[in-house]
Amino acid sequence: MKGLGNPPEVWILRLGHRIFRDKRVTTHLALAARALGAEGIFIQGDLDESLRRSVQKIIENWGGDFKIEFVTDWQDMIRVWKEAGDSVVHLTMYGLPFEKYIDEVRRNRSRVLLIVGGKKVPWEAYVLADLNLAVTGQPHSEISAVSIFLDRLYQGKELELRFKRPKFVVSPSPRGKVLLRRARDEKTETK
Amino acid sequence: MKGLGNPPEVWILRLGHRIFRDKRVTTHLALAARALGAEGIFIQGDLDESLRRSVQKIIENWGGDFKIEFVTDWQDMIRVWKEAGDSVVHLTMYGLPFEKYIDEVRRNRSRVLLIVGGKKVPWEAYVLADLNLAVTGQPHSEISAVSIFLDRLYQGKELELRFKRPKFVVSPSPRGKVLLRRARDEKTETK
Repeated sequence: MKGLGNPPEVWILRLGHRIFRDKRVTTHLALAARALGAEGIFIQGDLDESLRRSVQKIIENWGGDFKIEFVTDWQDMIRVWKEAGDSVVHLTMYGLPFEKYIDEVRRNRSRVLLIVGGKKVPWEAYVLADLNLAVTGQPHSEISAVSIFLDRLYQGKELELRFKRPKFVVSPSPRGKVLLRRARDEKTETK
Repeated sequence: MKGLGNPPEVWILRLGHRIFRDKRVTTHLALAARALGAEGIFIQGDLDESLRRSVQKIIENWGGDFKIEFVTDWQDMIRVWKEAGDSVVHLTMYGLPFEKYIDEVRRNRSRVLLIVGGKKVPWEAYVLADLNLAVTGQPHSEISAVSIFLDRLYQGKELELRFKRPKFVVSPSPRGKVLLRRARDEKTETK
């Protein structure tokens, strides 16, 4: 992602997505990943066109090139990724403290495939990953884990990202909503 | 929360919870808040006993005193909070960059009520809050926003929290799952 200096590109691999149970959680994950500088998300599990549409709608309105793709053979994908010299990091509460490894990940400069799953991640993910890292050893949320990981990886620079070709941008406001429509740069809503 | 030095106590106020649509997202929010050092969560919207049970089950197994409460008159609650001299921070993509205010929030040392909502937050929240702060001006996730806010507020110290009276604790592992049952300190599962 341009605007982040020269840190590694991050792609998310979300394992075990189920349409009914996970739609909103996976949508939040994709949007957080996009907002915080990741390049895209691969989703394994149910093919969920409604999820894809939700995320693409956000990209159309808010800009950038975030990618969302559904994958089936995720283990093969990890192998291809590793053969290309890229890193594979699995975020799991059972892993090593991520804060001790984040500088190493940043220094590598290879692309990072960041694997997250739901409750039951297949053991192959633990074996195939270069690093199994924990954002606390407590049960919480893959959305939280990915967000903190990206914020630390990019050292806050991701908060200043500007996305290409947005229809809308927010004008930061102390009290209310100020939304600018980029085509004409007019205020569309103020409250 | 003990173990965090002397920073402000944080409580989350989640507005507009709906049972069917939000159960998993609000569960993730509560668990992330707990794992990252918040004291508890107030939930306004549908009374959701299943959500309460899910969160309490985690607390029983993983320890600590995290509170989950349902509230109805949230505006009155905010007023009482402010009258007591505590801070009210509303996290919204329309707000001012949180990273410029986080040191101020930390210095205040008063308790912080951290308001988050779904898509449509009533305008009263913007008016009643002492600060409307954005974790990026992009649409993403209240789980992500709260997580990054807490990580920055507590400056990473929250990653080393130890919760009181857990049944289980994770032993960090480079490759697999090592779970210790605290009563007898025996390994229950290794993979």
